[in-house]
Amino acid sequence: MKIRPLGDRVVIKRLEAEATTKSGIVLPGSAKEKPEIAQVVAVGPGGYVDGKEVKMELKADDKVFFSKYSGNEVKLDGEEYLIVKQDDILGIVED
Amino acid sequence: MKIRPLGDRVVIKRLEAEATTKSGIVLPGSAKEKPEIAQVVAVGPGGYVDGKEVKMELKADDKVFFSKYSGNEVKLDGEEYLIVKQDDILGIVED
Amino acid sequence: MKIRPLGDRVVIKRLEAEATTKSGIVLPGSAKEKPEIAQVVAVGPGGYVDGKEVKMELKADDKVFFSKYSGNEVKLDGEEYLIVKQDDILGIVED
Amino acid sequence: MKIRPLGDRVVIKRLEAEATTKSGIVLPGSAKEKPEIAQVVAVGPGGYVDGKEVKMELKADDKVFFSKYSGNEVKLDGEEYLIVKQDDILGIVED
Amino acid sequence: MKIRPLGDRVVIKRLEAEATTKSGIVLPGSAKEKPEIAQVVAVGPGGYVDGKEVKMELKADDKVFFSKYSGNEVKLDGEEYLIVKQDDILGIVED
Amino acid sequence: MKIRPLGDRVVIKRLEAEATTKSGIVLPGSAKEKPEIAQVVAVGPGGYVDGKEVKMELKADDKVFFSKYSGNEVKLDGEEYLIVKQDDILGIVED
Amino acid sequence: MKIRPLGDRVVIKRLEAEATTKSGIVLPGSAKEKPEIAQVVAVGPGGYVDGKEVKMELKADDKVFFSKYSGNEVKLDGEEYLIVKQDDILGIVED
Repeated sequence: MKIRPLGDRVVIKRLEAEATTKSGIVLPGSAKEKPEIAQVVAVGPGGYVDGKEVKMELKADDKVFFSKYSGNEVKLDGEEYLIVKQDDILGIVED
Repeated sequence: MKIRPLGDRVVIKRLEAEATTKSGIVLPGSAKEKPEIAQVVAVGPGGYVDGKEVKMELKADDKVFFSKYSGNEVKLDGEEYLIVKQDDILGIVED
Repeated sequence: MKIRPLGDRVVIKRLEAEATTKSGIVLPGSAKEKPEIAQVVAVGPGGYVDGKEVKMELKADDKVFFSKYSGNEVKLDGEEYLIVKQDDILGIVED
Repeated sequence: MKIRPLGDRVVIKRLEAEATTKSGIVLPGSAKEKPEIAQVVAVGPGGYVDGKEVKMELKADDKVFFSKYSGNEVKLDGEEYLIVKQDDILGIVED
Repeated sequence: MKIRPLGDRVVIKRLEAEATTKSGIVLPGSAKEKPEIAQVVAVGPGGYVDGKEVKMELKADDKVFFSKYSGNEVKLDGEEYLIVKQDDILGIVED
Repeated sequence: MKIRPLGDRVVIKRLEAEATTKSGIVLPGSAKEKPEIAQVVAVGPGGYVDGKEVKMELKADDKVFFSKYSGNEVKLDGEEYLIVKQDDILGIVED
Repeated sequence: MKIRPLGDRVVIKRLEAEATTKSGIVLPGSAKEKPEIAQVVAVGPGGYVDGKEVKMELKADDKVFFSKYSGNEVKLDGEEYLIVKQDDILGIVED
């Protein structure tokens, strides 16, 4: 099963943060900050959203920074995803 | 009796969540989270809503994720429904 | 006397809820939930409201679900009515 | 002296509520609810208000229901008036 | 020195309220209500304000009712003025 | 160094208030009210701001009243400035 | 790795504040105010944002004042950046 986002929405999945601090200590789960970088899983079609034309600038597999606390968390087949509006994507991480 | 939603509204019905945890323990009613997935029951005609044209992208029987706490709960013939705006539908679950 | 609503407003009247629970116990007035279904009494002319054209989709005698806490309660000739905006009407109940 | 309202504003005057309850008891001033019905005293010219064209649908002497807590109370020659926006008028009471 | 208001702003000056109650008792300063009527001192040029065209409908010396708590109090040459938006002027008092 | 404001922003500098009361007592720093009048230091180019065309009506050296609590305080070369939107300027003080 | 901001967003990096007070005392980290000046690192493409055309007026290496508490902090390769909307940039510091 997969999620097809509507309008200007984007499905993203948080990338696992490194569970090791700079000093080399392995952190238990609860001490890890939620990772700030996510990977784009699916991109809505854009078009007219709230009366304004939105062109989608993202594609699947983009690594992105997203606005904290934005979007809705959903679970599908035991996996957690975030569904956010494209406007909640701050920027794309490039190599 | 049935509900004919107005404008960009959609009538949805929550799908029963599996009442069994991964460990196989059966949960009593109060311990179950409200299911996050719903089935579309009826779709409004769209058209001009708040001065903006809205095209309906959903159809009856679509399985959808919806924005928590959105919409209004109504009861008809003993059944509970949610009436939400199409914009509160996050995405469609596809096989 | 009657009320002629302005713009995109609609006069509705709550339909009496059944005062009997499933178990057959008759509830006194204060224990009854306010009914969620109302009957349309009068419909405003629509037209330009807040700079946007509104087409009225309701007619007198429609049975409707309406958004809780919306609108203003008024009393005329001892009868209670609600004056709501058409956008507070969620959907029409059909047989 | 009189008040000439600007834009989409309307000057209204509350109609005296009957100071007698159904049981025939005469209520002292403080126990009376503020009347919900008012009479239109003067109507602004309408025109462009906040960038939107507003057509005035009211005329002097109309009896109207108005949105509670809306508008500004003013006093002129010892008389109390309310200056409200036309959009705070819910409907016209007709015989 | 004088104040030239910008855009759709208007400089007004509160008119002294009668410092005598109906019973003839002279009230000390702190017991007097702030007067609700003001005199227009200067009127901005109007034009495009927040992307919307505003036509000024007031002129110097108009006596006006204004929306309580609106605007900014300023002091010039020891005199107190209020700078309000034209939309905070409720109506003009006419003889 | 100097600040070039963007869009419809204006850099202003508070004018020193007279540190002497009417009674001739010299007030210590903390007892002085922040002055309400400022001098324009630099004016942004205007143009399209938030989708709306803004024409700048101010020029350097104008003495202005500004809306209290508006804008952002910044420090450059030890001097304090306020960067405000032109719409936070209430009026120009003229001789 | 680098961040490519979307729409009207700008990536900025706070410039180190002088860690010495006027009196010559070296301040420990926690006593230092967060610097108010930042350097532009990357500029989004602008274009239509929320239905309005935005033209980017900034370029990399501009020194800017920005609105406190605006934007989102992100970390990349151990370095801290702020991603803000161009409208949160108050002005450019010029020599």
